[in-house]
Amino acid sequence: MATRLRAGILGATGAVGQRFVQLLENHPWFEVAALYASERSAGKPYGEAADWRVPVPRPTYAEEMIIRAMEPNDDVDLVFSALPRDSAETVEADFAQAGIPVISNASAYRAAADVPLVIPEVNPDHTELINVQRRNRGWGGYIVTNPNCSVIGLVLPLKPLHDVFGLRLIQVVTMQARSGAGYPGPPPEVIDDNVLPFIRGEEDKVEAEPRKLLGTLEGDSIREADIIISAQCNRVNVLDGHLEAVSLGFENRPDPEAVIRALRDFRGLPQEARLPSAPARPILITDQEDRPQPKLDRDAGDGMAVTVGRIRPDSLLDIKFTVLSHNTIRGAAGAAILNAELLKNQGYL
Amino acid sequence: MATRLRAGILGATGAVGQRFVQLLENHPWFEVAALYASERSAGKPYGEAADWRVPVPRPTYAEEMIIRAMEPNDDVDLVFSALPRDSAETVEADFAQAGIPVISNASAYRAAADVPLVIPEVNPDHTELINVQRRNRGWGGYIVTNPNCSVIGLVLPLKPLHDVFGLRLIQVVTMQARSGAGYPGPPPEVIDDNVLPFIRGEEDKVEAEPRKLLGTLEGDSIREADIIISAQCNRVNVLDGHLEAVSLGFENRPDPEAVIRALRDFRGLPQEARLPSAPARPILITDQEDRPQPKLDRDAGDGMAVTVGRIRPDSLLDIKFTVLSHNTIRGAAGAAILNAELLKNQGYL
Amino acid sequence: MATRLRAGILGATGAVGQRFVQLLENHPWFEVAALYASERSAGKPYGEAADWRVPVPRPTYAEEMIIRAMEPNDDVDLVFSALPRDSAETVEADFAQAGIPVISNASAYRAAADVPLVIPEVNPDHTELINVQRRNRGWGGYIVTNPNCSVIGLVLPLKPLHDVFGLRLIQVVTMQARSGAGYPGPPPEVIDDNVLPFIRGEEDKVEAEPRKLLGTLEGDSIREADIIISAQCNRVNVLDGHLEAVSLGFENRPDPEAVIRALRDFRGLPQEARLPSAPARPILITDQEDRPQPKLDRDAGDGMAVTVGRIRPDSLLDIKFTVLSHNTIRGAAGAAILNAELLKNQGYL
Amino acid sequence: MATRLRAGILGATGAVGQRFVQLLENHPWFEVAALYASERSAGKPYGEAADWRVPVPRPTYAEEMIIRAMEPNDDVDLVFSALPRDSAETVEADFAQAGIPVISNASAYRAAADVPLVIPEVNPDHTELINVQRRNRGWGGYIVTNPNCSVIGLVLPLKPLHDVFGLRLIQVVTMQARSGAGYPGPPPEVIDDNVLPFIRGEEDKVEAEPRKLLGTLEGDSIREADIIISAQCNRVNVLDGHLEAVSLGFENRPDPEAVIRALRDFRGLPQEARLPSAPARPILITDQEDRPQPKLDRDAGDGMAVTVGRIRPDSLLDIKFTVLSHNTIRGAAGAAILNAELLKNQGYL
Repeated sequence: MATRLRAGILGATGAVGQRFVQLLENHPWFEVAALYASERSAGKPYGEAADWRVPVPRPTYAEEMIIRAMEPNDDVDLVFSALPRDSAETVEADFAQAGIPVISNASAYRAAADVPLVIPEVNPDHTELINVQRRNRGWGGYIVTNPNCSVIGLVLPLKPLHDVFGLRLIQVVTMQARSGAGYPGPPPEVIDDNVLPFIRGEEDKVEAEPRKLLGTLEGDSIREADIIISAQCNRVNVLDGHLEAVSLGFENRPDPEAVIRALRDFRGLPQEARLPSAPARPILITDQEDRPQPKLDRDAGDGMAVTVGRIRPDSLLDIKFTVLSHNTIRGAAGAAILNAELLKNQGYL
Repeated sequence: MATRLRAGILGATGAVGQRFVQLLENHPWFEVAALYASERSAGKPYGEAADWRVPVPRPTYAEEMIIRAMEPNDDVDLVFSALPRDSAETVEADFAQAGIPVISNASAYRAAADVPLVIPEVNPDHTELINVQRRNRGWGGYIVTNPNCSVIGLVLPLKPLHDVFGLRLIQVVTMQARSGAGYPGPPPEVIDDNVLPFIRGEEDKVEAEPRKLLGTLEGDSIREADIIISAQCNRVNVLDGHLEAVSLGFENRPDPEAVIRALRDFRGLPQEARLPSAPARPILITDQEDRPQPKLDRDAGDGMAVTVGRIRPDSLLDIKFTVLSHNTIRGAAGAAILNAELLKNQGYL
Repeated sequence: MATRLRAGILGATGAVGQRFVQLLENHPWFEVAALYASERSAGKPYGEAADWRVPVPRPTYAEEMIIRAMEPNDDVDLVFSALPRDSAETVEADFAQAGIPVISNASAYRAAADVPLVIPEVNPDHTELINVQRRNRGWGGYIVTNPNCSVIGLVLPLKPLHDVFGLRLIQVVTMQARSGAGYPGPPPEVIDDNVLPFIRGEEDKVEAEPRKLLGTLEGDSIREADIIISAQCNRVNVLDGHLEAVSLGFENRPDPEAVIRALRDFRGLPQEARLPSAPARPILITDQEDRPQPKLDRDAGDGMAVTVGRIRPDSLLDIKFTVLSHNTIRGAAGAAILNAELLKNQGYL
Repeated sequence: MATRLRAGILGATGAVGQRFVQLLENHPWFEVAALYASERSAGKPYGEAADWRVPVPRPTYAEEMIIRAMEPNDDVDLVFSALPRDSAETVEADFAQAGIPVISNASAYRAAADVPLVIPEVNPDHTELINVQRRNRGWGGYIVTNPNCSVIGLVLPLKPLHDVFGLRLIQVVTMQARSGAGYPGPPPEVIDDNVLPFIRGEEDKVEAEPRKLLGTLEGDSIREADIIISAQCNRVNVLDGHLEAVSLGFENRPDPEAVIRALRDFRGLPQEARLPSAPARPILITDQEDRPQPKLDRDAGDGMAVTVGRIRPDSLLDIKFTVLSHNTIRGAAGAAILNAELLKNQGYL
């Protein structure tokens, strides 16, 4: 293993921060050199400050690392951000200003015209916005973002379909896992024996972000895809794994077999470039009538592949199916790590 | 209390059968006179044969009743049927043939052209098909059915909207409770920490039954409503209460306020005639952004009212909302009992 | 209803505080006149500040009451305390000093020699310590406490057995509900599919408090009962209801039938004086081999009766059984309310 | 890998049978050559007949194997039995009679004087009873049994303590997982939000089997250890892992440190002989105050090690602690496999 880049993690004690700590253990390109968290935790060893919730053991490397306050240092080559929206707005800008690339899972900058919102299999070329961003803002570093957890699982299978058949209409109803609400999420008194039919801010993101992701880079900006999206977001009593019931309308109506073929054959830049966190196949197809299921399918491709099932004609639009993705891996920390791998592959790191 | 009609319950030991036993305790018009179940249980006291699962105590009246095999007797005035489809097909016909009205929750006869499929608030006049049915089949009794558990919660709020605005398109994604799968339903190994994206036969029913329910009686038959329906049905880890995410397209696009008014003001025959099991208002509206929830709202109106929330414009069709109904009360046993009350009110009993 | 005493609730927004708010709705003797909580909530309407978790609807009377900071006022006749130990220590003393009787569920003063620790069925005469306490501390008011939630369910059935057979040895293993950990208790990531074999401070309380409760008032102090107790406390994934597996050794070994008789016949002062919150019978006996169960039996006697089952000989000590009690009703808020009723009956209020 | 012995599995479709199928995949000494189940399943491919519930994927090797009816064949060298008690009684005798060694997890023969009841770390010499058994019964094969699932986790840590300090008294309260009830076990309606304080027949086994396991082989029979045991058995809502709260009285009262040393240093024949399924250390000690926990510790040593925590003095007996074991691995299928490995090591296979 050659010299690895020194990575920091912003918001390292939270649910997504813990996933970064876990997924970056033994990463071939990045080495965790700094853990940042709020004032309350700064100065404490990570093993003590982080109430570990990831359902695999805590890596020993992080146990004794002392948590830092969230100020930029020059001993990291990049930072991953697992911050909540509010603190992300200032902290991420501070780091980018200080010359540090910020690979962010936060929503604060996703909609900004000069900030790339990227899924490496979908729109790897959008990283060119980095140059516009630096020019606009006078930053030495930059910010690159990944989409909302429920958007990634949706857009991955939409990409090959949009390319071939021209996507026009999306109806999506999500059944999202508890871990998507951070830690601690809804207490058992609330979520046991229940479904919550509302997740603050979520439907707006699901109705907006796919248009940017499937949009095209024209000069210095993204022209959004002309797609109408309607989303209804629900929280269910599942630990990990967002399930989504999707109906699609196209310019050129495909039959289910053509959809299956397009999904099955799809490979993106991460697969071609063999990025370390890329799953062999980004989209898996199941033909079992009662799959995908969160408990059985969320760990497919080490949590980086999405699983699509029940592909069938829709009596109202054209095609409907169910898609499952691991919300804290492919939908959050794993997404940002794959973005960092893309950026290194493209020479931005 | 005047003399009550003597009622039998077909399939009295199952999940819906137990609900009949519970809901008919102290009913002002009907008295449980006979409990019928499969050969395996016949001859045993109900208290011993039924593995009671309804989350309220078992009524004492049924404890010592001896279960009968499923053959028609002349000591009952009507029977409620909680049979599975297969046995319903022959047993219900046997009872109707023998002169006994069968008020059925089973799916076997719902689609038959001469069998009323009824929600008393929606299409009380469809019971006129009873005359056609008797003529066609030469039966002394008859069969009247109620819809599938996930259809009732859907169609109740559709009725006033269809009347005023002309319903054309329905997209519905259901999140259905475990009890809808009968007893025992999916074991904890399967349903804990999980969602099942498939319920056998369910989507077909949800795409078919509303068209008959919202249809119009013309001469001797029902002309189905001209509505396109697309359904995706999921099983979630909830004890009771089906939640449905609904999108609707209309001939005359209403705004959300008009929808709220139409739902809120709606009353049907059961309310006007003050049928014993009718809720004061069949449709409740919540303006809390995170309601309805199965755990908090399923018992509204003693399980006979449905609750609608999150009424808002839909970017793709016209209006979307979330609706919740109690699947074993309004969606099954309570539905059949209300049908029987309607039939008595109309003179068919 | 004559004029009711004006009651305050200290710590009204927490899990036990919410139970006080619920149980005091329509109480014949006490009227909730003030809700107190920490600085963070003071000044807000209760309906907004309290994240309601009791599994019955929030009473409307409390909705608009403005929460006060925790300073004594002269417009209340007594206060109920649902405070955590630390703040209880100073706040309860402040109120007692200011002349206000404090009926406390907190553990801060339970072990103090001049503070009554009372279960009305067990040791109603211990309230005489109030006079000692006032003299010692120069307080106008006073503090009366009830035991720990897992102690009440244990000691209630021990009382009649100790009286008749002379209790010497207690082995108890508890399986305690989540609500006993306050709100929010252990998150689903921790408690789902799990048992926690440790509850901080709990075993010490269970090994100490029964000795004071079953002790005798001699002059100005309590002589503790001479009983050896060994406790092992576990947290299980149950909403409400503490289950305890108990083994007992006696001076005069009883047979199971004698134990059943003693428990079944037991009535205490609350039953004789017909205190408003007293259950008709404080101890229920079940002879079903698989009862008591938390889900089925916790609400017995409106949560104020305990249920004992599986009474049988113990091969090591003398008798073993399983006992269940509702931990936030009989084990907390209901316990304090019954104490207040006792104090009114005795003329201390 | 040399030629492996051909193993059959009796009762291969049930919960424990599935564990045998999983654990024997790639076993160095045994190869699954036959799967036996009831008439209902015989003739079907295993992949179709077994409703797979083990929380790891079903091994592909078994998928297409055709299930046999339960009659002895000469193409297996031994059988593992996961049968329920009733059918075990006749089927196991049939196989032993036919010359086939039966390594059984069933309870039918555990108490028989000439049948070894064995935990390889505890009483490996008891297998000598095989000779007595063959002589008594005229069998070519034989039956060797392992204890009840909750007994194994209890007796493993008792062994070194009994050897050194002389065990006299045991109080144990179990909190047992759902999987111990077979498949399907208690449905969610019963076990969610609940504890069941009764498991049929379990307390008798826990009070009897340790006496035989800790007994000594004298001539042709076992002299049981002179220990008084009192057990209370409960079912909790946990998938896998039996937790037990244990109090112990000794001839020579040890202090906790001596107990910890004795447990920590313990190794048995399986460790010395490096049997393939033996954990490196059979007993793990945790000093975290809130461990062991089923969810976190059941998989220790691949489910073959037990974890002991909270070792402390007991105010009534001498020492108390909490022990956790994986009930379907070390407590059932893994126990029988380790027994088979012991028998091969001793030359009985």
